[in-house]
Amino acid sequence: MSDDLTYPGGKLRLFVEAPLGANGRVVIEEGQAHYLLHVMRAKPGDRISLFNGRDGEWLAEVKETAKRTCTVECTVRIEPQSEVPDLWLVFAPVKKTPADYLTQKATELGVRVLQPVLTRRTIVTRVNTERMCANAVEAAEQSGRVTVPEIREPLSFDKLLAAWPAERRILFCDEGGDCLPIAEALRQAPAAPWAVFTGPEGGFDPAERAALRALPHVTPVSLGGRILRADTAALAALAVWQSVCGDWH
Amino acid sequence: MSDDLTYPGGKLRLFVEAPLGANGRVVIEEGQAHYLLHVMRAKPGDRISLFNGRDGEWLAEVKETAKRTCTVECTVRIEPQSEVPDLWLVFAPVKKTPADYLTQKATELGVRVLQPVLTRRTIVTRVNTERMCANAVEAAEQSGRVTVPEIREPLSFDKLLAAWPAERRILFCDEGGDCLPIAEALRQAPAAPWAVFTGPEGGFDPAERAALRALPHVTPVSLGGRILRADTAALAALAVWQSVCGDWH
Repeated sequence: MSDDLTYPGGKLRLFVEAPLGANGRVVIEEGQAHYLLHVMRAKPGDRISLFNGRDGEWLAEVKETAKRTCTVECTVRIEPQSEVPDLWLVFAPVKKTPADYLTQKATELGVRVLQPVLTRRTIVTRVNTERMCANAVEAAEQSGRVTVPEIREPLSFDKLLAAWPAERRILFCDEGGDCLPIAEALRQAPAAPWAVFTGPEGGFDPAERAALRALPHVTPVSLGGRILRADTAALAALAVWQSVCGDWH
Repeated sequence: MSDDLTYPGGKLRLFVEAPLGANGRVVIEEGQAHYLLHVMRAKPGDRISLFNGRDGEWLAEVKETAKRTCTVECTVRIEPQSEVPDLWLVFAPVKKTPADYLTQKATELGVRVLQPVLTRRTIVTRVNTERMCANAVEAAEQSGRVTVPEIREPLSFDKLLAAWPAERRILFCDEGGDCLPIAEALRQAPAAPWAVFTGPEGGFDPAERAALRALPHVTPVSLGGRILRADTAALAALAVWQSVCGDWH
């Protein structure tokens, strides 16, 4: 019997690089094939769905299974291609487990770009962007997105700001006080592409904070009086942004 | 030389059970003593701060160190006792690592009570409330709270709703569509004590969903069109609540 392969939360979705179109065949390999064949026990006739970030989401039927590969054929497009809101997350790197979480959650919360930034107080300087990509793909598959966020290579604070596109507003999560609460600031802010900008444990250096606050396209905001871990602050700011300015609105 | 013991993000704070008052001595034991003595290398004269959820936050000076204990003396109260907003989190249990994460983040985001609820689709049924307490204490210490959230024993969905205090509104994160966006719903809602109520992976059973939506004190809300993991939905809803109704406002 044919089955729709599912996991808790929905249909089994895979992100692939190949172009997708009616009757197009795609060979699933490596980790995805292992998952399909040995975890989900896929057999010919089973249905999954595929997306590649360009051609929308397609239903696909398993045609052939081998030991290490699985061939599927696209049948019908079930979602047109679409984009998440134009929101970036700029964040100071955190340790491995929080970094995994941050990437997964930011993907679910609908960011378009993840940009690590190395600030003066950043303790973690090695960023495993390959691991971030894998986490982002998995989270995109489970969240129903038809895109995967772009994971950028880390940049220094100074380089990042020097090359910053002036039309993109920065939502600066400022622990220094003396700024509007986040929801109020966002309700007053102009419609624009945005980036949530969060610092490392211990916050931005005073010179960095002053540099950010001096820029005309920066909106400093408060996330209340409790001290939030770096990843908590990032996720909270993304959620509030989506609820006020984004597609939860 | 005397030092203020700090970690990234601020002063070293410990939650203790003992009463706190001027010149009162407190013996720090077990894991906290290990941390103080062997990780932070505390010595007589060093300063930390203490809170117990009742007497505010006190500066305290290390007086004596032994192999397994450390005696500190309260000097001056630096924060009065205060409470976080009256917000509960009711959540279907998740696996170990996400559960640790959820407890820590919910504590940082300022919840007063964490209540696990066993729904029909809940896969994880064992809840380690002792581990949750330890995570909540650690997060409270790091976040600057002078309280630790109360961790309740799990209840079945039916029992929980049968005993629900009618004056406490339920912010029901409803994946079924057909409800207001979260920020808009919260702006229209009456001032009240609240509970964020989130389901397991795969969501609430249709009968549970109908039961929740039939209650007059329930506000069903949407967190957008992407599928969020259970812990992501909980944290996102807590952040938006704090930004609209809570102490980030």
